[in-house]
Amino acid sequence: MITSRLPRTVTAWRPLLVPLVVLLTWDVLVTVAFKVGWIEFRGITIQYTLYGTAIALFLGFMVNASYARWWEARTLWGSIVNHSRNLGRQATTLLDRTVPDARADLPGEIVRAQVAYVHALRTSLREQPSPPEVADYLAAEPLARVRSSTSSPTAVLSHVGRLLAEAQQRGMVGDIARVQIESTLSVLTDAQGGLERIKKTPLPVQYRFLPSFFARAFCLILPFAVFKDLQWWTPVGSGLIGMMFLLAVQVGRDLADPFLDRVHDVPMTAICRSIEIDLLEMIGADTPEAVGPVKQVLW
Amino acid sequence: MITSRLPRTVTAWRPLLVPLVVLLTWDVLVTVAFKVGWIEFRGITIQYTLYGTAIALFLGFMVNASYARWWEARTLWGSIVNHSRNLGRQATTLLDRTVPDARADLPGEIVRAQVAYVHALRTSLREQPSPPEVADYLAAEPLARVRSSTSSPTAVLSHVGRLLAEAQQRGMVGDIARVQIESTLSVLTDAQGGLERIKKTPLPVQYRFLPSFFARAFCLILPFAVFKDLQWWTPVGSGLIGMMFLLAVQVGRDLADPFLDRVHDVPMTAICRSIEIDLLEMIGADTPEAVGPVKQVLW
Amino acid sequence: MITSRLPRTVTAWRPLLVPLVVLLTWDVLVTVAFKVGWIEFRGITIQYTLYGTAIALFLGFMVNASYARWWEARTLWGSIVNHSRNLGRQATTLLDRTVPDARADLPGEIVRAQVAYVHALRTSLREQPSPPEVADYLAAEPLARVRSSTSSPTAVLSHVGRLLAEAQQRGMVGDIARVQIESTLSVLTDAQGGLERIKKTPLPVQYRFLPSFFARAFCLILPFAVFKDLQWWTPVGSGLIGMMFLLAVQVGRDLADPFLDRVHDVPMTAICRSIEIDLLEMIGADTPEAVGPVKQVLW
Amino acid sequence: MITSRLPRTVTAWRPLLVPLVVLLTWDVLVTVAFKVGWIEFRGITIQYTLYGTAIALFLGFMVNASYARWWEARTLWGSIVNHSRNLGRQATTLLDRTVPDARADLPGEIVRAQVAYVHALRTSLREQPSPPEVADYLAAEPLARVRSSTSSPTAVLSHVGRLLAEAQQRGMVGDIARVQIESTLSVLTDAQGGLERIKKTPLPVQYRFLPSFFARAFCLILPFAVFKDLQWWTPVGSGLIGMMFLLAVQVGRDLADPFLDRVHDVPMTAICRSIEIDLLEMIGADTPEAVGPVKQVLW
Amino acid sequence: MITSRLPRTVTAWRPLLVPLVVLLTWDVLVTVAFKVGWIEFRGITIQYTLYGTAIALFLGFMVNASYARWWEARTLWGSIVNHSRNLGRQATTLLDRTVPDARADLPGEIVRAQVAYVHALRTSLREQPSPPEVADYLAAEPLARVRSSTSSPTAVLSHVGRLLAEAQQRGMVGDIARVQIESTLSVLTDAQGGLERIKKTPLPVQYRFLPSFFARAFCLILPFAVFKDLQWWTPVGSGLIGMMFLLAVQVGRDLADPFLDRVHDVPMTAICRSIEIDLLEMIGADTPEAVGPVKQVLW
Repeated sequence: MITSRLPRTVTAWRPLLVPLVVLLTWDVLVTVAFKVGWIEFRGITIQYTLYGTAIALFLGFMVNASYARWWEARTLWGSIVNHSRNLGRQATTLLDRTVPDARADLPGEIVRAQVAYVHALRTSLREQPSPPEVADYLAAEPLARVRSSTSSPTAVLSHVGRLLAEAQQRGMVGDIARVQIESTLSVLTDAQGGLERIKKTPLPVQYRFLPSFFARAFCLILPFAVFKDLQWWTPVGSGLIGMMFLLAVQVGRDLADPFLDRVHDVPMTAICRSIEIDLLEMIGADTPEAVGPVKQVLW
Repeated sequence: MITSRLPRTVTAWRPLLVPLVVLLTWDVLVTVAFKVGWIEFRGITIQYTLYGTAIALFLGFMVNASYARWWEARTLWGSIVNHSRNLGRQATTLLDRTVPDARADLPGEIVRAQVAYVHALRTSLREQPSPPEVADYLAAEPLARVRSSTSSPTAVLSHVGRLLAEAQQRGMVGDIARVQIESTLSVLTDAQGGLERIKKTPLPVQYRFLPSFFARAFCLILPFAVFKDLQWWTPVGSGLIGMMFLLAVQVGRDLADPFLDRVHDVPMTAICRSIEIDLLEMIGADTPEAVGPVKQVLW
Repeated sequence: MITSRLPRTVTAWRPLLVPLVVLLTWDVLVTVAFKVGWIEFRGITIQYTLYGTAIALFLGFMVNASYARWWEARTLWGSIVNHSRNLGRQATTLLDRTVPDARADLPGEIVRAQVAYVHALRTSLREQPSPPEVADYLAAEPLARVRSSTSSPTAVLSHVGRLLAEAQQRGMVGDIARVQIESTLSVLTDAQGGLERIKKTPLPVQYRFLPSFFARAFCLILPFAVFKDLQWWTPVGSGLIGMMFLLAVQVGRDLADPFLDRVHDVPMTAICRSIEIDLLEMIGADTPEAVGPVKQVLW
Repeated sequence: MITSRLPRTVTAWRPLLVPLVVLLTWDVLVTVAFKVGWIEFRGITIQYTLYGTAIALFLGFMVNASYARWWEARTLWGSIVNHSRNLGRQATTLLDRTVPDARADLPGEIVRAQVAYVHALRTSLREQPSPPEVADYLAAEPLARVRSSTSSPTAVLSHVGRLLAEAQQRGMVGDIARVQIESTLSVLTDAQGGLERIKKTPLPVQYRFLPSFFARAFCLILPFAVFKDLQWWTPVGSGLIGMMFLLAVQVGRDLADPFLDRVHDVPMTAICRSIEIDLLEMIGADTPEAVGPVKQVLW
Repeated sequence: MITSRLPRTVTAWRPLLVPLVVLLTWDVLVTVAFKVGWIEFRGITIQYTLYGTAIALFLGFMVNASYARWWEARTLWGSIVNHSRNLGRQATTLLDRTVPDARADLPGEIVRAQVAYVHALRTSLREQPSPPEVADYLAAEPLARVRSSTSSPTAVLSHVGRLLAEAQQRGMVGDIARVQIESTLSVLTDAQGGLERIKKTPLPVQYRFLPSFFARAFCLILPFAVFKDLQWWTPVGSGLIGMMFLLAVQVGRDLADPFLDRVHDVPMTAICRSIEIDLLEMIGADTPEAVGPVKQVLW
C-alpha cells in the first residue's frame, strides 16, 4: 500500500510508463503525418461521445468491482485482526490454569500458534514460501505436520483447534466457553475463506480484457479526431485524455488483485506484524518492531 | 471460469461471432449502398447521444445486476467451502469416540456425507445427473433414499442431520456442541437456498430482453449516422462502437446465470474437488488430484 | 414472474400498449403538421442533452431502487424457504418422541402449521382471501383463532410457538434445543416483517410520480427536435427513443411493488408450494404437484 | 409518508411553489429583456453540457445518499416492529406464571412497557413532548423515573430490563431463556441507536449546500443559453429543465431527514400504533384503531 | 461535523479559498491575454465533453468511496454507542451483588472503565495525547498499565475483560451471562478494529491523487475553451464550472479521512460525552454537560 500522495519508488510508476510513452509517440506521429499531408481526414464528432459513453460504462463496471474487491480484502484482514485479538483475550482469560490437570503454557501456545497462522496465511496468499515466523512460533511436531499439508494456514488453524481440544480434556475450559472460542475459530475460517475466494476468483475475463482493449483502441483513434481543432497542440490534448482512460484501466488492475506482492497490495506484512505485537504483549513475551513503510510503500 | 486473459478455447468466443459477423456485414452493406447512391440521408446527431444515454442506462442496470448475481453465487459457494471445513473440524474434534456406546467411524461418515453433499449440490445446480461421488461417499441405504428424493442435496444434508442425531443418542456429543454443529448445518441450508434462489429466479424479463433489443436496433441505425463523416471508414467506426454495445450485453448475459455449465460458470467442479481434498485430509483418507483448468477454462 | 424471454401472455404487454400507441400517434401528427406547414420551429439541441441527463438521473434512481426492492423481496422469501426447511428439520430431529409424556404427532403438527403459515403469508401479501391450505393444515381450534385475528400469518406463527411450548412442557425438548427453534421463529418473524415493510412502504412519491411525468413530457417535445433532421422518418426515430424512456419507467413500476398479483410478482405461489412439498416429504406425508408456469408466467 | 401518487394536501407542494414561481418569473424576465433588446448575448453550448455533468454528479451523490438514509430509517423501524413482536411472544410464552413466587401480571407489564417504549422513541425522534401513551402504559413509579431522565426511550427500555430481572429473581425464567430475551433487548438498543445516528448526523454540509446552490445558479443562467433557439418559448423550455433540477434537489432534501414531522416522514405514528395493536392482542387487551392516512398522508 | 448549512467558522472555508482565488486569477489572466491578442486559439469542443466524462468517472469513484468511508466510520461509532449502553445495562443488571464474595463497586468500576475506553479510543484515532477522562475513570494500577501499553483503547478493554473475570471468580456472574457480556466485548473489539482499519488504510493513492490532478489540469484549460463564446464573461463561466469540479474533489477529501481533528470529522467528542452521560446515569453518578456545537461545528 502506498502511504504518500506521490510515491517516490519507481515500481509504482513503471506499469504506467510504457503505455504513456507509446501513447505520446503515436500522438506525435499522427500530428506530424497530418501536418506533412500524409493523411487527410475530416473531423469526426459523434463517434467520440458515443465511444466515451461506452468506455465510461466499461471502466465504471471494472473500477467499481476492483475497488470493492480491494476493500473487501482489507475488511477481511481487519476481521482477522479483530478475531486474533479476541482469540488471544479468550485464550488468556477463559482457560483456567488452576485446575489439577492444567498445562500452564497452553494459553501461550495457542496465542503463538495464532501468530504463526496469520503469517502462514499471508505468504499463502502471496504464493511465497513458508515464512520464518511459522517455524519460530510452532513446536517441532506441529511444524512437521503443517509442512506436509497442502494448505499451511488451514493446518495451523487445525492445530489451534487441537490445542483447544486438549484444554477441554484437561478440564481447563468449560463447555460454554469452549463453544465461544470455537465460534472465534469459525469466524477466522470464514475470513480466510473469503480471502482465498478473492485470490482464486479473478475478475471475470470480460472485465479484465475489454476495458483495456477499448481504452487502447480509443487512444489510437483520438489524435485523428482532435487534429482539426488542436493542430500542433494535438499531442497535448489527445495525450491528456488518453492518459486519463489508460490510468483508469490501470487503477482497476492495481486494485483487482490485492495479494500479488505489488506496491498496491493490502499491506499484509504490516498487518501480520501488528497482530504479532498485540498477541505477544498479551502473554508478556518480547515483541518485534512494527513494520513501517519502505520508500513510502507499506508491504 | 476463464483463467487467462485471452482464452484459446473456441466456446468462449462463439456466442460473439455470429452477432459480430452480422454487424460488420450490415455496416459494409450500408456503406456500399450510400456510395452507390441507393440511399441518401442527412447526418443525424441529437438522436445518437440520446440513444447512447438511454442504452447506457439499460446496460448499466443489466450488467451491474448480473455481476452482483455472479459474485453472490461465488460468495455463497465460498460460504459452503468454509462451513464444510467447519463441519469437518467440528465432526472430528467435537465428537467423542471414547464413550462406551461410541461408533468410531461416525465422524468419518459425517465428513464423507458432506463430500457427497457438495457434489450433489453442484450437479443439481447444473441440472446434470447425479455424480459418481454421491455413490462413492454414501453407504447403500442412504444412497437409495437420496436417489428416490426430489432434491438430492437436501436429502444428503438430512442424512448428515440423522448421523448427528445418532451421535447424540450414543452420547458422543453434548447438548451445546450439538447445537453448534446444528448451526453449521443451518448456514449450509442458507447458502444452498441462496444458490437455488439465483438459479430459479432469472433476471427480470425486462433486463434480459430490452438491453439486447435496443443495442441491436442501435447497431442497425449506426452506419447511417456516421457515413457522412467516415465515408469508406464507416464499417470500421460503426463496427467498433456497435461491438462495444453488443459485448456489454453479452457480458451481462454471461454473468447473469452462473450455473449453466458454460465457460463463464462459477467453477463448481474445482471448488467441490478442493472441499473434497480438504475434508478427506482431515480424516486421513486418500485424496484425489485438484482440478486444473482445461484449455484455460476452470469448470 | 415471467420465465421466457418473450412472454406470449397478453397481460405482460398490455400496460405498454396504450402509451406506445399514443406516443406514435403524436409523433405522426407532429410530423404531418410540420410537413403541411402548420408549425415552424427551429431545431433545438442543447435542451435535449440536458433533458436526457436529467431524466437519466431520475430514471436511474427509480429503476435501481425498484430492482433493489424486488430482489430484497425475493431474498426474504428465500430466507423463509430456508428457515421453513430448518424448522422442519429441527422439529423432526430435535423433538424427542420417546419421553413418557410425549405426543407423537406434535412434530408433524408443527410442520403442517408451518405449511399453513407460508400460504397465509402469501395471500396476506397479495391481499387475497385466506387460501384453502390454511384450513387444510390447521386443526379446527387454531383455525378459528387464526380467522378471528387481524393478521393471519402472525396468528399462525404464534400457534407454532404454542405447539413448541407444549413440546417443552411435555419434556420433548430441552432448554438449549428450544432456544434454537425459537431463533428459527425469530428469523421467520424478521423475514415476514421485511416483506410487510416492502408491501406497506411504497417507493417515495417523488420516485413514483416524477420520472413518469418527465419521461412523458420529453416524449411530447421530442418530435419537434428531430423533425429537421429526420423529416418523414421522424415517427420512427422519435418513437424509438421515446419508447426506451417509457419502457424504463415501466420497468421501474413493474419491479417496485412485487406483491400485486401481477405477472411481474415474486412467484410466491410456486415458492410456497415448493416449501409445502419439502416439508411434507420430511414427515412422510403425500405431496402435491409443483407449480409450473402458466402461459410462461410463474405465479 | 404520502400514500397516493398525487397528494391533495397543500403542504406537500408548498416547498416547491416558491422556487418554481421565482424560476418562471426570472425566465420570463430574461426572455422579455432579450426581445426588447436590453441584452445581447451569443448562445453558449459547451458550458451547458459540462454544467449538466457536474450538477448531475452532485445531485446523484445527494439523492442516493438521502434515499439510503430514508430506507435505512424505515428498515430500522421494521426491525423495531419485528423485535417488539418477538419480545411480546417471548414474554408471554417463556415466562412461567406457575412457579410459587410468580407475579401473574409481569408478562403483561413487560408488553405494555414495550408499547410505551415505541411511542417514547417516536416522539423523541420527532422532538415532540412525551405522548399520552407513555403515561397510559406505565405505572406511576417507572413513569416518574422516565420523566426525570434525559432520554425517555432509553429509560423505558431500562425499565423493561428491570422487569425482566425481577422475573428471573422470582424464578419465572431460566438462565438460557433470559439470555435470549436479553438479546432481543440488545437488538432493540441497536435499532434505536441507528435511528438516533440518522437523526443526529445530518448529511455532510457539502451534500446539503452545494447541490442546491449549483442547481439554482444553473437556473439563473439557463434562459440566456436557450433564448437564441427557443425565442418566446424560452420560459417553457428553460422552466421545464430548471424545474427538473430543482425538484431533484427537493427530493434529496425531503428524504434526507426522515424524522422532521413532515409529510415525507417515515410514518412512525402508524407503525407505533400497529405495534401497539399487535402487542395488546397478545395479552388479550382491548386494541385501539389502526392509523389511516389523513389527506393521503400517513403520519 | 458542521451542523448548520452555512458554517460561520473560517476553518471550514479556508481549504477552498486558495484554489478558488488561483482559479479566478488564472481565468482573468487568460481572458485578458485573449482580448489583448497575446493568444489566438480556436474554440475546441470535443475535448471538453470527453474530458468531462473522464473526470466525472474519477470524481464519482472518489466521492462515493469517501462518503462510504465517512458513513461507515459514523456507523461503527454508533455501534460503540449501542454496545457501551448494552455493556452498562448488562453490568448493572446481570452482576449479582448479593453473593457472599461480591465486591459491590465492581459493576460501577466496569461502567467507569468503559467510559475511559471510549475517550481513549477517540484520542487514539485523532492521534492526540491521552485525555483527562482516562485518568479520571481508571484506578491508579490499571491506569499505569494503560499508559505503558502501545494501544490505550485495547489496554482499557483488556482491563474491562479482567474485571469481568474477577466478577466470575467471585461468583457474581454465571457462565451463560458471562458469555453474553463477552460477546458485547467482541462486538466492541470488532467496531474498534473497523475504525482503525479506516484510520490506517487511506483511500488508494490513485483515488487521492488522480482526481485532484485532472480536475486542476481541466481548470487550466477551461478558459481557452469558453473564451470564444463568453468573451469578457469568461472568468464567470469558466470559474463557476471549475469551482464545481474543485469543490467535488474537496468534498471527497473532507470525507475520506474522518478522524483528522478537522471540522468535517465524525463528532467523536460529542459522541463520547453522550456515552459518558448515559453510562454515568446508569450507576447514579453525577453527569457532565453534553457537548454542543462551537461556532456551528460539533467536534
